[in-house]
Amino acid sequence: MKQSYEHKVQYYETDQMKVVHHSNYIRWFEECRIDLMEKGGLGYERMEEEGIICPVVSVSCQYVAMTRFGEVVEVIPKVKKFNGIRLVITYEVRDKETKELRCTGESSHCFLNAEGHPVNLKRSSPEFYNMFLKLSE
Amino acid sequence: MKQSYEHKVQYYETDQMKVVHHSNYIRWFEECRIDLMEKGGLGYERMEEEGIICPVVSVSCQYVAMTRFGEVVEVIPKVKKFNGIRLVITYEVRDKETKELRCTGESSHCFLNAEGHPVNLKRSSPEFYNMFLKLSE
Amino acid sequence: MKQSYEHKVQYYETDQMKVVHHSNYIRWFEECRIDLMEKGGLGYERMEEEGIICPVVSVSCQYVAMTRFGEVVEVIPKVKKFNGIRLVITYEVRDKETKELRCTGESSHCFLNAEGHPVNLKRSSPEFYNMFLKLSE
Amino acid sequence: MKQSYEHKVQYYETDQMKVVHHSNYIRWFEECRIDLMEKGGLGYERMEEEGIICPVVSVSCQYVAMTRFGEVVEVIPKVKKFNGIRLVITYEVRDKETKELRCTGESSHCFLNAEGHPVNLKRSSPEFYNMFLKLSE
Repeated sequence: MKQSYEHKVQYYETDQMKVVHHSNYIRWFEECRIDLMEKGGLGYERMEEEGIICPVVSVSCQYVAMTRFGEVVEVIPKVKKFNGIRLVITYEVRDKETKELRCTGESSHCFLNAEGHPVNLKRSSPEFYNMFLKLSE
Repeated sequence: MKQSYEHKVQYYETDQMKVVHHSNYIRWFEECRIDLMEKGGLGYERMEEEGIICPVVSVSCQYVAMTRFGEVVEVIPKVKKFNGIRLVITYEVRDKETKELRCTGESSHCFLNAEGHPVNLKRSSPEFYNMFLKLSE
Repeated sequence: MKQSYEHKVQYYETDQMKVVHHSNYIRWFEECRIDLMEKGGLGYERMEEEGIICPVVSVSCQYVAMTRFGEVVEVIPKVKKFNGIRLVITYEVRDKETKELRCTGESSHCFLNAEGHPVNLKRSSPEFYNMFLKLSE
Repeated sequence: MKQSYEHKVQYYETDQMKVVHHSNYIRWFEECRIDLMEKGGLGYERMEEEGIICPVVSVSCQYVAMTRFGEVVEVIPKVKKFNGIRLVITYEVRDKETKELRCTGESSHCFLNAEGHPVNLKRSSPEFYNMFLKLSE
């Protein structure tokens, strides 16, 4: 099933080029990622409650077309890789109405316990492991 | 002694009106406040290390003139009130070169311990109490 | 009719106090204000297309309780004053579920033409004038 | 000569992981890039005054270690490629004191005229062309 997350462009997200500042797309990826987990059944706040954080190890974004105030975009995530240790998600940002592509991107993540050590979700949190596995199908 | 904090306006702080978005001045007040404590000799990170946080209870800003990308502003803080329980700071933001007034503002703060209860700095942290007392002279 | 605008708290809106950074409420007021205009029938982007901007002249916020990641808040706007020259809106931010009050605030605005001169909406843009009049009832 | 740009980590840049939110590094790259142009003798605001904008075509960041409130980082830019049409800059973010690497990144850019068409700086703005050429040595 193709998930999709909607974001309405805010005025404070624009810059003096009269388009959305490029750093905000990175934040939309995060919004989308967190929404994906919620739709998967386990919100990110629950992961932190279990003492596991999921920091961003790398992020990239290719800007294709500019986005303007007042527009609504949809961010389409895809779990590209998940093995319990590493998670890679790709994103497409499209205009909600025209479906015009605005940018593509990718973020990769690891999982750390409260001491900051990498963990394998398979052992540390089977519930989240299974959720990501299902999301990656 | 009149303290002053310098901030260089960043591109990502502008919006499509081609001026600094109004919410950023609130952030500059924070930058200035933290700088004030550092110049007073005790950084805010040390307060948090002692288990005390200093949340914002209220904030206000009157916008007088617009600020543009590439400009440098100075933020001039003044401790208006401090009694160990409540801290009130006022701010003036001026263009560094022309000294033109851009906005005035005010923030008020309390002090909370790790349990989230209000504390009197005079007892909880005499060192910080004395610093703010000195800053309010 | 009581309007209300919903905002889902984002991870990037938190700070190391583990609550929403106070500057973001000022941005939520803007989101709510723009939503109010849309519900009134005339989006803010149309005002800018007509060559009129509506800058913030002052803003204030009283923080009552902290807001956390994963929560949804509703922002309830009220047009307190409108006379074509000046617009004042008050805001209440409440937890969507518990209705607990998180903060109250106020923003005041003027209207400027492309040359940066104050205008009276009654003459410059009767359509927007009537909308704000209706919203202030 | 190795340029370097200093940034003091702000409280509002942290998130509830108690470290700098990953999106802010992308903003620091921008701060550094603009600083680089200034040190090169021609500020970015002058480019926009000449009717040329320099949007970000792609950006990437590899996060190596976390950065905390109160720290000062230096961002070291390097013009990796410049031919008048395309500009690629790489960045290293390091702790100012320990020189510990925090992240590496890269941004690529094109140049657009007022109509939004790609231009070659060599013809459109020889002054900026020569500056970037010198910076890329």
